[in-house]
Amino acid sequence: MCGIVGVFGHRPVSQVIYDSLSMLQHRGQDAAGIATSFLNRFYLHKGNGLVTEVFDVASMAKLLGDMGIGHVRYPTAGCGSVAEAQPFYVNSPHGIVFAHNGNLTNVDEIIETVFEKDLRHLNTTSDSEVMLNVFAHALGKRDAIRPTPEDVFAAVEDTHSLCKGGYAVVAMISTVGIVAFRDLHGIRPLVYGQRTIHGRTDYMVASESVALQVDGFELVRDLEPGECLFIDIHGKLHTYKTKLPHTNAPCLFEFVYLARPDSVLDGASVYQCRINMGDKLADKILREWPDVKIDAVVPIPSTSRTSAIEIANRLGIPYREGFVRNRYVGRTFIMPGNEQRKASIRRKLNPIPQEFKDKNVLLVDDSIVRGNTIKEIIAMTRELGAKNVYVCSASPMVIYPNVYGIDMPSRAELVASGKTLDELAEEIGADKVIFQDLEDLKQSVTECAPHLTEFEGSVFDGHYITGDVTEEYLRALEKQRNDATKINEDVTSHITRNLAAHL
Amino acid sequence: MCGIVGVFGHRPVSQVIYDSLSMLQHRGQDAAGIATSFLNRFYLHKGNGLVTEVFDVASMAKLLGDMGIGHVRYPTAGCGSVAEAQPFYVNSPHGIVFAHNGNLTNVDEIIETVFEKDLRHLNTTSDSEVMLNVFAHALGKRDAIRPTPEDVFAAVEDTHSLCKGGYAVVAMISTVGIVAFRDLHGIRPLVYGQRTIHGRTDYMVASESVALQVDGFELVRDLEPGECLFIDIHGKLHTYKTKLPHTNAPCLFEFVYLARPDSVLDGASVYQCRINMGDKLADKILREWPDVKIDAVVPIPSTSRTSAIEIANRLGIPYREGFVRNRYVGRTFIMPGNEQRKASIRRKLNPIPQEFKDKNVLLVDDSIVRGNTIKEIIAMTRELGAKNVYVCSASPMVIYPNVYGIDMPSRAELVASGKTLDELAEEIGADKVIFQDLEDLKQSVTECAPHLTEFEGSVFDGHYITGDVTEEYLRALEKQRNDATKINEDVTSHITRNLAAHL
Amino acid sequence: MCGIVGVFGHRPVSQVIYDSLSMLQHRGQDAAGIATSFLNRFYLHKGNGLVTEVFDVASMAKLLGDMGIGHVRYPTAGCGSVAEAQPFYVNSPHGIVFAHNGNLTNVDEIIETVFEKDLRHLNTTSDSEVMLNVFAHALGKRDAIRPTPEDVFAAVEDTHSLCKGGYAVVAMISTVGIVAFRDLHGIRPLVYGQRTIHGRTDYMVASESVALQVDGFELVRDLEPGECLFIDIHGKLHTYKTKLPHTNAPCLFEFVYLARPDSVLDGASVYQCRINMGDKLADKILREWPDVKIDAVVPIPSTSRTSAIEIANRLGIPYREGFVRNRYVGRTFIMPGNEQRKASIRRKLNPIPQEFKDKNVLLVDDSIVRGNTIKEIIAMTRELGAKNVYVCSASPMVIYPNVYGIDMPSRAELVASGKTLDELAEEIGADKVIFQDLEDLKQSVTECAPHLTEFEGSVFDGHYITGDVTEEYLRALEKQRNDATKINEDVTSHITRNLAAHL
Amino acid sequence: MCGIVGVFGHRPVSQVIYDSLSMLQHRGQDAAGIATSFLNRFYLHKGNGLVTEVFDVASMAKLLGDMGIGHVRYPTAGCGSVAEAQPFYVNSPHGIVFAHNGNLTNVDEIIETVFEKDLRHLNTTSDSEVMLNVFAHALGKRDAIRPTPEDVFAAVEDTHSLCKGGYAVVAMISTVGIVAFRDLHGIRPLVYGQRTIHGRTDYMVASESVALQVDGFELVRDLEPGECLFIDIHGKLHTYKTKLPHTNAPCLFEFVYLARPDSVLDGASVYQCRINMGDKLADKILREWPDVKIDAVVPIPSTSRTSAIEIANRLGIPYREGFVRNRYVGRTFIMPGNEQRKASIRRKLNPIPQEFKDKNVLLVDDSIVRGNTIKEIIAMTRELGAKNVYVCSASPMVIYPNVYGIDMPSRAELVASGKTLDELAEEIGADKVIFQDLEDLKQSVTECAPHLTEFEGSVFDGHYITGDVTEEYLRALEKQRNDATKINEDVTSHITRNLAAHL
Repeated sequence: MCGIVGVFGHRPVSQVIYDSLSMLQHRGQDAAGIATSFLNRFYLHKGNGLVTEVFDVASMAKLLGDMGIGHVRYPTAGCGSVAEAQPFYVNSPHGIVFAHNGNLTNVDEIIETVFEKDLRHLNTTSDSEVMLNVFAHALGKRDAIRPTPEDVFAAVEDTHSLCKGGYAVVAMISTVGIVAFRDLHGIRPLVYGQRTIHGRTDYMVASESVALQVDGFELVRDLEPGECLFIDIHGKLHTYKTKLPHTNAPCLFEFVYLARPDSVLDGASVYQCRINMGDKLADKILREWPDVKIDAVVPIPSTSRTSAIEIANRLGIPYREGFVRNRYVGRTFIMPGNEQRKASIRRKLNPIPQEFKDKNVLLVDDSIVRGNTIKEIIAMTRELGAKNVYVCSASPMVIYPNVYGIDMPSRAELVASGKTLDELAEEIGADKVIFQDLEDLKQSVTECAPHLTEFEGSVFDGHYITGDVTEEYLRALEKQRNDATKINEDVTSHITRNLAAHL
Repeated sequence: MCGIVGVFGHRPVSQVIYDSLSMLQHRGQDAAGIATSFLNRFYLHKGNGLVTEVFDVASMAKLLGDMGIGHVRYPTAGCGSVAEAQPFYVNSPHGIVFAHNGNLTNVDEIIETVFEKDLRHLNTTSDSEVMLNVFAHALGKRDAIRPTPEDVFAAVEDTHSLCKGGYAVVAMISTVGIVAFRDLHGIRPLVYGQRTIHGRTDYMVASESVALQVDGFELVRDLEPGECLFIDIHGKLHTYKTKLPHTNAPCLFEFVYLARPDSVLDGASVYQCRINMGDKLADKILREWPDVKIDAVVPIPSTSRTSAIEIANRLGIPYREGFVRNRYVGRTFIMPGNEQRKASIRRKLNPIPQEFKDKNVLLVDDSIVRGNTIKEIIAMTRELGAKNVYVCSASPMVIYPNVYGIDMPSRAELVASGKTLDELAEEIGADKVIFQDLEDLKQSVTECAPHLTEFEGSVFDGHYITGDVTEEYLRALEKQRNDATKINEDVTSHITRNLAAHL
Repeated sequence: MCGIVGVFGHRPVSQVIYDSLSMLQHRGQDAAGIATSFLNRFYLHKGNGLVTEVFDVASMAKLLGDMGIGHVRYPTAGCGSVAEAQPFYVNSPHGIVFAHNGNLTNVDEIIETVFEKDLRHLNTTSDSEVMLNVFAHALGKRDAIRPTPEDVFAAVEDTHSLCKGGYAVVAMISTVGIVAFRDLHGIRPLVYGQRTIHGRTDYMVASESVALQVDGFELVRDLEPGECLFIDIHGKLHTYKTKLPHTNAPCLFEFVYLARPDSVLDGASVYQCRINMGDKLADKILREWPDVKIDAVVPIPSTSRTSAIEIANRLGIPYREGFVRNRYVGRTFIMPGNEQRKASIRRKLNPIPQEFKDKNVLLVDDSIVRGNTIKEIIAMTRELGAKNVYVCSASPMVIYPNVYGIDMPSRAELVASGKTLDELAEEIGADKVIFQDLEDLKQSVTECAPHLTEFEGSVFDGHYITGDVTEEYLRALEKQRNDATKINEDVTSHITRNLAAHL
Repeated sequence: MCGIVGVFGHRPVSQVIYDSLSMLQHRGQDAAGIATSFLNRFYLHKGNGLVTEVFDVASMAKLLGDMGIGHVRYPTAGCGSVAEAQPFYVNSPHGIVFAHNGNLTNVDEIIETVFEKDLRHLNTTSDSEVMLNVFAHALGKRDAIRPTPEDVFAAVEDTHSLCKGGYAVVAMISTVGIVAFRDLHGIRPLVYGQRTIHGRTDYMVASESVALQVDGFELVRDLEPGECLFIDIHGKLHTYKTKLPHTNAPCLFEFVYLARPDSVLDGASVYQCRINMGDKLADKILREWPDVKIDAVVPIPSTSRTSAIEIANRLGIPYREGFVRNRYVGRTFIMPGNEQRKASIRRKLNPIPQEFKDKNVLLVDDSIVRGNTIKEIIAMTRELGAKNVYVCSASPMVIYPNVYGIDMPSRAELVASGKTLDELAEEIGADKVIFQDLEDLKQSVTECAPHLTEFEGSVFDGHYITGDVTEEYLRALEKQRNDATKINEDVTSHITRNLAAHL
C-alpha cells in the first residue's frame, strides 16, 4: 500500500503536495518523495522516513514549479523495492517522473517480452519502475515531439493492455503535463478534485479524498476503472475512458482497514461503511450468540473503533476503550541488558486493568490476518482476570493472499486459513470468535454507494478479478518471493560484512 | 511540562531509559536527552526532536553504564530554555547530571541571594540549571569526599528550603548514585518501581507509572511530597521524608489532561478519574439542562474521549467520533502559493459531515484554555449544518495562570477569564456551555484515591499552594515574561541577520 | 577540468576507485561520484565536496561489484552543471552510467538535431548528459540484446561523428562492460594500466597515470585519439582505433598546469616537461635580459616550483621559497565584524619578508590568465620593500578562450589579451615581464615525447584544432554563457527567496 | 600539539577566530572548537574534523559576541582526550571556557591532592580539563563577585605553582574577560597582537604569529615565560609577570618541525632558522663527508624543503624535488579486494623516477623519529635504481621521549635510540646518515634571536627543564600510558560490541 498525489496549479505546488502527502501518510510511513517541474527541468527530492523527516526548508525551497507529483511508501511489498523511494525518473522519451500504488500480477512476463525487446534497464525490483518503462516505451512509440492528449491516452491504453493487476498511477511528462490512471478493475483508489483561485482552476489527483481538503480542493469524483486523466501544460483537463474490457470492483480492504475514515472512496464514506459493518456484525452476534453474556465492547485500536462504537450501541452494551495505544513506540537497540523487554505488541498497547478484571469482554478488530496481535492481546486480557474473551471481526476470515498491493502473506501465514471457527478460537486463545459475512461486508459499502455491484475481495473468497491468478500462480509467487528474499539477503550480507569490517 | 526518568540497573540501562522516555513522550516532544554513568565518567546525548529522532544506533551505543537518567522536554515554559535540552551537567562538586519537570516561583530571588555568593554561572534561562546549581552548592557545602545518604538528603532538604514551586527531579552523582525528589506539595508527579532479575533488584523513578511497565518494572508507589529517594552506587535504596512543612496537593491538571489514561498517579487510575469526570458532568447536564435535546455526544480528540464515552452512556445518547485526528500534520513552509491553506486546527481535525448535518451535538472537551481550538471546531460544525452546538468541559473554567510548570498564559489570554457562561458561549460560538464543578473534579480523583484531600488547582480557583504567588507576583511575572521574550528575540534576530546575509 | 576513472577487477573495486579519485582530486574538488555494478544492478553514490567528504563507511559499503567508474568535478564550466555530480545514468538502452572530462563545441546543434528526433530529456546543462544520451542513442540503434564489442565500437564511432570538442569518457553498461574513449584529437588525456593478481588481469583507465600506481596498476599506455577501449563482462580487453579522421594534439595546458608533475601523459613525464620549460625560459632570460640583475628566483606556489628550481639552476641565482601557501583557507561568512579581512590571495599566500626586502626578485609563474593573483602578489612584494620585481611565465601569453574543458574566460577577462609586454608589466605592476615562446613550450614536451608533433594550444595562438571554432562562434558562446548565467540566477533566486521567507 | 587563539574585539569575533584557526590548522586537524561570549552567555560550537568541516553558516551565526576563544586539536596525546574537543566549560566560579596547548607532567599528583579536596569531577582524561579546574578552583578561592586583574593574576600564579609542564593557555571568564598565559619555561609558544579600527584596539593571542596577520592584527610580541595577559570586559589590556622562578627555554622542535615557516616565534623567523639549519648542516657535511659524491639534494616534503634548498646552495649541488606529495590521501575502508594496497607512506609520496635512477642522492629530512617513513622512502629510491642514498637530518638524533605536548613515543619506538650512526644507517637502509649537532641547532635559532640562551630540547639530550622528569618518571609514564590505553580500549570495545550487534 502506498499513497500518491499529483497537482497542477497556477502557483507553486510543493507545499500543497507536501500537505497532501501528510494526509496520506497512513498509507505509507517508510519513504516519501516529491517531484516538481519548472520550465524544462524536474526537481526531485525523496528519502526514507516520514514526510516531516524527509523534507526540510532547504529541500522544499528547491522544488520549483507549478506542477508536481508525490508519493509515500509502505515498508513492504506492494510498492516495490526498499532500495529507492518514488517517484522514479526516466529520460527517454521526453522525461517522465512516475509514482504508483499497487501491484502487478504479470511482472515477469512483462520483463521478458517487453524489456528484452526494448533494451530498457531496471535498477530496482519495483513494479513502479516496470510500469514506468512500459508507459515510457508506449509513449515513445508514438514518436511525437510534443505529445497530444491522444498520444498520452494511447500510451496509457497500451500500458493497461500489458499490465495486469491493481494500480493507481500518477506521472508527469516534462513540458507536457500530468497523467493519472487507474487499473481496469478500479481495484486501487484514485480520486480527483479542483479549486478555483482568481478564476483559474487547479487540479489534484490523489489516493484518497482526505488529501484534497487540506488545501481547499473539493472532491469532483473518483476516476473510473481504466480511466485516464490528463492535465496538459496549459492547465486544461482531458479525460479518457478506456475501450478495453473493464469492471468496477474496488478493493474491499480499503473500506475495512486501509483508507482513513474521513475519506470518501467510490462515493462511499469510509466512516459510514464501518458504522454499517458494526451494525451488521451486531445483528449477526445477536442472531448467533443469543445467550452470550457480554459486559463491555472493547475495540483494538485504532481502526476498529468506528465499528465497535456501533456494535456497542446496537447490542446495548457499554463501549469501553480498554486499551491505550502508545503513539511513540521506539526501536529496539540490540544491546546488553535488554532481556526483560516485552513482546512488541505489549509495547504498542497498554490495557486498563479494571476494564478486564472479572468481565466478559467482546474484543472488536477490523480483521484478523496473521493473528499474532490478537493472540497477544487476548493473553493480556486473561492475565488481567477477564472472565470470558470473545472476539469479533468486522470483516470475514482472511484466507487467501493478496496480489494487488496489500501486504498479505502466503496462505501458510494466514491464521484463519484452513481452520474452523472453533479451531481458530482455540488457536488465538479466545472463548468464541465471530466474523462478518462477506455479503454483509459488501452491503455495508453498497448501502453507501449503490452503484457498486462488484468488489475485489480475493483475500476472503479467493476470487481474483484479473483472472490470471491461479493456484499455480500463487504457488510460483510464494517460491519466487522466497528466492527474491534470498538475493536481497545476499546483497545485504555483502554490505553488512563490509560495514562489520570497520568494528 | 516535561517527563523525567532515572534507572539503576545491574545491567546496561540505555535501552530501558529510551523505552521509558518513549512512554513519556506525550509530556514533551521538543527535545530529549539521556545521561548514563560508567566507572567515573558520564556519557550524555541530547538533542531537539522526538526520542526516535534524537537517538540512533551510534549515540545509543555510546551510552555506557548501569545507571542513568533521561528527559523529554515540552516546547514552552515549564522546562526552561529552548537553548539546550536536559539533562544538565555541572562538574563541581563530584559531577552531577540533572533533569527536572516543573517550575520554580522564586528563581529571581534564588539567583540574587545564592548565585552572587556562590559565583556560579548560568548559561541558560532554565529553572533546571538553577535548581541543579542550588543542589550542587548544597551538596558541596557538605564537603564529603564520598557523600553518604545523609549528605544527599541534607542537600535535598536545603534545596527544598530554597526552591519554591512545583517540581520533580532526578539527578545522578558520579560514582555516588541516583537521587530523585518531589516538591513539598507533591504538585508534579513522581513514581518509582522495581524489578528483580536473577535475585538483584533494579529501580526506576519516572514521571508516570506507564514508563515503568514497558520493561517489566512494577509500580511500588508515588514519592511523597518532599520525599527523597536515593539509590547508592551499590544499588541500595534509601528514602528520606522531609522534616520541612509539606502537604499532599497533586496537580489536578495531570488528571484532566497531562497524564496518560493508563497511568496511575498518587494511587488514582487516570482513566478511572476521567470516567468519573464524565459521570459527574453528565449528572450536572441532566440537572441543569433537563430540556436540552442532544442527538450525539462528540469528543474533541483525543483526551476527552474517555469522559465523553461515559457522558454518552449516562445520558443514554449515542457516542459518535465526529472528528478524525490527523496524526501526521506537517509544517508550513512560507513559500509562494500557500494562500489557500486552512487554519491550523482544520489541518489537525477532519469532521465526518453526516455526524453534524441537522443534528444537535454535544461537544466534549477536557478543558477550555485559550479557546482558539473550540471556536474553530464549532465554526466547522456550523458549516456542516449542525442544528445546535453544545459544549461541555470535563474540568472547570480555567481563569488563572499556572506557575508550576504548565504552559498556561496570562489571564488576558484565557478565554474564560472574566466571562459569564453566556458571554463565553457567545465568544466561542456555542449555543450553550457547561463546566464541571471544581468539587466534582476533585471528587472524581478522590473516589479513586481517598487519601488525597488537597489539590493544586490554582488555574481554576486562584489558590496557589506555595503561598508566594500574589497578585503583584502575577503582574510582575507577566511583565518579566515579556522582557525575557524581548531579549530572546534580540539574540534570535542577531542570528537571523547573520544567516540572512548568506542569501 | 575533471578527473575520471574506470576499473574492471576480479574483486570488489570501490576502494580502488576511491583511491584513484583521491589521486585525481587536483583535477576537481567540487564534487565526486562512484558507480559500481553487481549482477544486473548499479550502485551509485555521489555528492558535493572532496572525495573524503563525499564517501564514508556506509556509502562505500553499498558500492558492490567488481567493476565501476568514478569522477571528480571542477567547480566551473568544463564539467557541466553545478546541479548534479557525475556519473550520470540512463536506463535506456541496457542501463548506462557515464562520466566525462572535457567540453563539446557543438552542444546546441546536437540538442537540436538529435534530441528532437530521439525525444530524450536532459535535466541538467551538462555536456556529459548530452554525450551520454548521444552514446545511448547510438548504442540503442544497434538493437542488440547483448551488445558485442562491434556494437559498442560502432556506437562510440557514431558519438565521435556527432560530438565535436575535447573529451575523455568512461562509461559502464549494465552486464556488458566498461567503455572508455578519447576525442579525435587526443585533447583531453586518458591512460590505461593493468595489474595481475593470481593470474587474472585487472584494468584501469584514468585521466592521469598517477591514478594507476596507488593500488599497484602499471601504466600500459595512453589511449590514442579516437581510440576506444572496451573491457567486456568477462574481463577481456578489446580496443578499436577510429576510422574517422583524427590527429594527435594533446592539450598543452595539461603539461603547463593541469596535470600532476608525477604523471606521464602521452609518453612525456610532466615533471620533466616542466624542468625543460625552466631550462628554455632561463635561456630566453639570459638572451633577452642580459643586464638584468636578479638576487633570487621565487616561485608562485605550487605548480611553478619545478620550473623555477631549474631556472635558478640555469641562471646560477639562489632559489628561494619566498611564499608559504596556506593549505587550509576557510570560507568567508558574511557577518558583521568582517570589514578588515584581507584580499583572498593574501589569505592563501604568506610572504617571508626578508626574502623581498631590498632585493631584486624574479617571480616565476606557470601562466598568467586573469592576472589578479600575480597583481596582488607583486603588490605584496612591493610592500615588503622589494627593489625590482621581474615576472616570468613558463608558458606563453594566454590570449584566447579555451573551449575544450578548461575554465578560461572570455578574451575580455584575459589580462594579456591585446597588450604588449610593457603594457602588461604596467598593468600588473611588474618592472619587467617575460613569457615562454610557444615553440619552446612545445619543444619542452616533444623532447620527452618525440612522437608528438601537434598540440592543442589555442589559448596561446587561437588555432582551434576541431576546426569549428570561429570568431562568430566565440562571440555567440560569450553571449550564450551570459544568458545561461541569467537563467541559473533566476532559478537560484527563486530558491533563495523561498529560503529567505523563513528568516 | 594543538593551536589556540583568543580574541577581544569591538565587533563580532567569530569569523576572526575561524580565520585564525584555519591558519593554525597545521597544529591539529583532529578537532576544532570556538566559544564566544555575548552578554552573560557563552556560545560554544566544537566537533571532530578540520575547521572547514566543523563550522558552517548555521553554527557560525550562533557564535555571538565580541570576545571569544578557539582551539584546534592534534589527534594524539598532548591535547588530551579523544572524547571531546576543546574549549572546555565549567560553570563554577563565574563560568569559564578554556583551551590549551601542551602537556602537564604532574597530572596524577594534581588530581590526588587537589581534586579530592575540591570535589571537582573530570569527565575526560584531558590535561586541559585538569588545568581548567585548577584555575577555576584558584579563582574561586578569591571569592570575588567581579574578579579584578589582581584576582585573575593570582589565580594564574596559583595555577603555575601547581601545574608542571609545558603549556600555553587561553581562557574566557563570563562578563570578566579573556586570560592567556604561558608556562614558566616558555616551552609552548604564545604570541599576541593588536589592530586598531576607528580608534579602538582589538587584541588577539595565538599559538603562532601567522594567526594574527590573516585579519590584520600585527604582532606585538611573545608572552614571556609565566607571563599572564588579561583583557578585561572593557577591552583594557593588563599584563602580569610571574614572581615564580622561571626561565626562557622555548621548545626547539617548534623551530625544527611544528611551527609554520612564516611564523615568528620568540623573535625568531622560523623560516630563517631553517635556512640556518641548512647552512650549518651543509658545513658539517662538507667537513665530515669530504669525499662523498652527491648528484642531487632531495627534500622529504614538506617541512625540510627550506633547509634542503640551503644545503643544496651551500654544497653547490642541484636541488631536486624528487618526491611529489599527495595532498588528498583518502582513508582505507576495510573491504574485500584491498590486498594490493601500498604501504601508507607510498600513498602519500610519489617519486619522480628519473631523479633517482643511477644517482647519488642526499635525502634531507627535518628529523628522524620512528624511522618508518625514511625507511620506506629509502626503499623506494633503491627500487628506482639510486646508486647511493645518503640521509641528513636538520635536527640531532631524537632519543628521548617528549613530555611537554609533542607526540614522541617511548624510547623503544625511537629508531635512533641506542644506536650508533652506522647502526642507524643500516637499520633504515641508508648508505650514510648525518645529523645536525645540537649546538648548531640552537645556534640556528639564536642567530635569529640572540636573547635566547636556553631551549627545551629534551628529545635530543634528555635534559627536562621542569626538573621533575626522572628515569623513574619516564618508566612509570610508559606503563601508565599502556594502562590508559587499555581502559580506553575497554570502553571502545563496549561501544563496538553494541554497534556490532546491529549488523
